[in-house]
Amino acid sequence: MEKRAIPIVSIVGTSKTGKTTLIERLIPVLKKKGIDVAVIKHHHLDFEADVPGKDTDRFKKAGAKTTVISSPVKVAVVSSVKKELKPHEIIERYIDGVGLIIMEGYKKERIPKIEVFRHKKGTTPVCMEDDLLAGIVTDVSFDAHVPVFLMDEVDRIADFIVSKFIREL
Amino acid sequence: MEKRAIPIVSIVGTSKTGKTTLIERLIPVLKKKGIDVAVIKHHHLDFEADVPGKDTDRFKKAGAKTTVISSPVKVAVVSSVKKELKPHEIIERYIDGVGLIIMEGYKKERIPKIEVFRHKKGTTPVCMEDDLLAGIVTDVSFDAHVPVFLMDEVDRIADFIVSKFIREL
Repeated sequence: MEKRAIPIVSIVGTSKTGKTTLIERLIPVLKKKGIDVAVIKHHHLDFEADVPGKDTDRFKKAGAKTTVISSPVKVAVVSSVKKELKPHEIIERYIDGVGLIIMEGYKKERIPKIEVFRHKKGTTPVCMEDDLLAGIVTDVSFDAHVPVFLMDEVDRIADFIVSKFIREL
Repeated sequence: MEKRAIPIVSIVGTSKTGKTTLIERLIPVLKKKGIDVAVIKHHHLDFEADVPGKDTDRFKKAGAKTTVISSPVKVAVVSSVKKELKPHEIIERYIDGVGLIIMEGYKKERIPKIEVFRHKKGTTPVCMEDDLLAGIVTDVSFDAHVPVFLMDEVDRIADFIVSKFIREL
């Protein structure tokens, strides 16, 4: 069964630029517009994936390849993989029923992206040459070939995402 | 793409009988036999699904329908659902590449089951009439139409699961 393509945008930038906080602030604004959001975060290393001591965490630590906990309102899955899943594999396997996928990281993938950088913290943009760069979020006035937003302009950024990635489809 | 049917057994019983501990102890024994295990746990209510304060937890609390965190060794997904997924939906969506699925709970489903009860704690078996009951794990000698095991006979229980549900396929 083929899924209808879900619009995707990746929030990229070097670490400690505020990508996570920006996504966290965008989700409720988008939701208020009626857009359900899925977020895919990239992690370079292993990570603690479950609430320590919870039953599924005990199963995982005992060596289960995959653990699932399912309730009437939520399902949670932790699975070991032999090699990192590509974004399209993650989407195909795990994501359905949303209006937008926001990725964090994945700056080398061929995915439309918005870059976050903080001039005041000395970070510089790393995706300026990427032809899929659609916008920039930063803390200074900045001249670019794509729209530039300030960190706190969450409503404007959400509007931009909607018009650029959702409405035009 | 149709998946090859993965053998399934559900560990059932009233609460506080030691189902979780039994599964936790079976996993490494089965793994030593070369059998990768997935565990599906049923939960009646909502549950805390992520490590509090972790980025994906922040996204979920901000209202994301689905969060995924992906690394070279692990992937974790938390998703809101409108109604509880049935076991076959969970398996179809989330489980692959294992030799056995152990479920915890789901006593009303048409799934082969092993019942755990503790006579010394006053619990009694609840699935004796179920034609899919395959074995009993308990703390007393007990007369039944299916094999009976003591709580600590983890190796014997693992052997039974292998011969009954995996080898005969």
